[in-house]
Amino acid sequence: MPKNVLIIGAGGVAQVVAHKMAQNASEFGQLHIASRTVSKAEQIIASVRDKGHSVSFTAHPLDAMDSAAVAALIRQIDAGIVINVGSAFVNMTVLQGCIDTGAAYIDTAIHEDPGKVCETPPWYGNYEWKRREACEKAGVTAILGAGFDPGVVNAYARLAEDEYFDKVESIDIVDINAGSHGRWFATNFDPEINFREFTGTVYSWQKGAWQENRMFEVGREWDLPVVGKQTAYLSGHDEVHSLSARYKDADVRFWMGFGAHYINVFTVLQNLGLLSEKPVKTAEGLEVVPLKVVKAVLPDPASLAPDYQGKTCIGDLVKGSLNGKPGEIFIYNVADHKDAYNEVGSQGISYTAGVPPVAAAILVARGTWDVKKMANVEDLPARPFLELLGTLGLPTRVIDATGDHPL
Amino acid sequence: MPKNVLIIGAGGVAQVVAHKMAQNASEFGQLHIASRTVSKAEQIIASVRDKGHSVSFTAHPLDAMDSAAVAALIRQIDAGIVINVGSAFVNMTVLQGCIDTGAAYIDTAIHEDPGKVCETPPWYGNYEWKRREACEKAGVTAILGAGFDPGVVNAYARLAEDEYFDKVESIDIVDINAGSHGRWFATNFDPEINFREFTGTVYSWQKGAWQENRMFEVGREWDLPVVGKQTAYLSGHDEVHSLSARYKDADVRFWMGFGAHYINVFTVLQNLGLLSEKPVKTAEGLEVVPLKVVKAVLPDPASLAPDYQGKTCIGDLVKGSLNGKPGEIFIYNVADHKDAYNEVGSQGISYTAGVPPVAAAILVARGTWDVKKMANVEDLPARPFLELLGTLGLPTRVIDATGDHPL
Repeated sequence: MPKNVLIIGAGGVAQVVAHKMAQNASEFGQLHIASRTVSKAEQIIASVRDKGHSVSFTAHPLDAMDSAAVAALIRQIDAGIVINVGSAFVNMTVLQGCIDTGAAYIDTAIHEDPGKVCETPPWYGNYEWKRREACEKAGVTAILGAGFDPGVVNAYARLAEDEYFDKVESIDIVDINAGSHGRWFATNFDPEINFREFTGTVYSWQKGAWQENRMFEVGREWDLPVVGKQTAYLSGHDEVHSLSARYKDADVRFWMGFGAHYINVFTVLQNLGLLSEKPVKTAEGLEVVPLKVVKAVLPDPASLAPDYQGKTCIGDLVKGSLNGKPGEIFIYNVADHKDAYNEVGSQGISYTAGVPPVAAAILVARGTWDVKKMANVEDLPARPFLELLGTLGLPTRVIDATGDHPL
Repeated sequence: MPKNVLIIGAGGVAQVVAHKMAQNASEFGQLHIASRTVSKAEQIIASVRDKGHSVSFTAHPLDAMDSAAVAALIRQIDAGIVINVGSAFVNMTVLQGCIDTGAAYIDTAIHEDPGKVCETPPWYGNYEWKRREACEKAGVTAILGAGFDPGVVNAYARLAEDEYFDKVESIDIVDINAGSHGRWFATNFDPEINFREFTGTVYSWQKGAWQENRMFEVGREWDLPVVGKQTAYLSGHDEVHSLSARYKDADVRFWMGFGAHYINVFTVLQNLGLLSEKPVKTAEGLEVVPLKVVKAVLPDPASLAPDYQGKTCIGDLVKGSLNGKPGEIFIYNVADHKDAYNEVGSQGISYTAGVPPVAAAILVARGTWDVKKMANVEDLPARPFLELLGTLGLPTRVIDATGDHPL
């Protein structure tokens, strides 16, 4: 019997998940979406209906910080799969709701504590992995970080392990957004979360240990398919914190592309203290968190979608050896902002993050990934996931000794 | 009988005024200082006492936005001269207090309405000059803009008119601060007022009409005494709005020096909307004025003084002709931040702004400038003012056909 699905969250990524779910409704039972602000969930359902999908899709109000409320909703709608694309602060309560009810859990980003920026590595060890035993005991499938990065890039690493190398020496994940939104400055997702990613220590796994750098300290020019030459900077990112556990002997680094303009704006705001999450007091005595004011003056990321043009290229450069013979491959996807908007009403950054958890949900529904325990994406078979993503709009390409070709 | 003096305001400029008043106490009767926060006025008196001055100096609490309260205090202490170095928003109420009591009025900057940025030129026509008739009728001496710029630079223009040219063709006022405070970024006076100066239209008087430019649109490299080659930008400033009335046939421009770093920070903040005086609402529903948050995160300008090093150069390049023979002169002052701090506990920007109104007050007390009506500085004899400033710590130098020499 097909499983009912509950989507938690109603932002740009949730919109993509909802559309992709509706496009693949035959894989599932009823569809549900829950958000603190139910009207945002209703708007997403309306945009799905506008595309002509006549699936069973229901909106619910939900405080996802309350695990009992999450469990109650799961039971009420008999959800077999929960896709958590809510704020980064609700992972642990939503996961608890799944453990308490037996529903499968899928998310796309690591848990964060609102009061802390950049905790001790590996980040998964601080929250998610502490619930591993509980998941296994309850027989609950919990797939962590099943977006694009983390997510698809973890599967790329696993593909290299499975099909190319018997020894993996380095995994360099490169994320380039060569698109343009036409605004003087904007962040592609919630400015608060975006800037929090870059104000802390940059952790990478090199020579078998955690290395620490500052943001924008280490830059490298990459020459990538379609997007061409781009400078990317060593950055802290979720997937480094799980891949480093599976590939202990390999260097694992994450590189994010930034233009000089982004770096300049970021540097000015950070040096002035305007990215601080600690309140300051104005001369008039008002207590205010500077970062929240910066968020208030910046464009709403969802508003960028209609004008967004250009492409993203995200991939893994994996170096290793097979039978002692060294080699390297680049496994990647190119996505287009305009195509994403035309298909699901979101820009490419939301599209690449929102399609993969739907692929994961299909694999859980089919049983392929229904592992009855907690897993990061690289712990699961990569090929079925990547092949499915090809049919869902995120095709994989590989540059290896034979050239640049589809997976 | 010597006149009692009331200083209004207790910021960096007021501190300089207080010290210079105390140094020249024999010119006046009792000294008084009033501020909304009386403790700030008391601190200034304490710093004067620390320098060993045993003058009669009293602090008073005052809401300078209330003209009746201003008049009452003037009557209470029998003040004959009021030096207004409070916020730019109190000029009109303080002036009214003087008109109502007969006290002489001296200020250093133009009146501003907190809700408006950059009004129609000439700016003096919007507020101050509307009270000309009232001053004349009451026989009240009101000297407008008697700081350095406006103020001393207006007297430089008048000196050129009096002693060098029978036809003035252009007045270019150049203000270069080549000092360094050692902070990543700071403004030299209240950030709110500092940024307001540069967010509006840049008005200059050229070819007999008001010309409009944007800030940082027109830059020019200057090669000045002591501070050397410096880039300054056409900027809006008070003195252009009075000099253009006296020198209708001359071009009148104001140039302020800015480094690339200041311009970059300013540009980022302005383009993001963080210099706006209009409130925004955070995601949490808090209404807040972005500019006030920027002010809250920036260093307190007064805190810069101990570490401030280097020099300022402010002067007028005046071109004209005498008996049909064209010529040009540069009349200027060089001030030193460290010397200013050692003498009066303030940095050079406050020093150059705070010494001139004391010179003006001495000339009013002596009768030389006690004109019993409203006047801008260029309407008054320049030489006694400039000679007095030489003895008070702001010597004038002139570069003319004979070379670079003291006035």
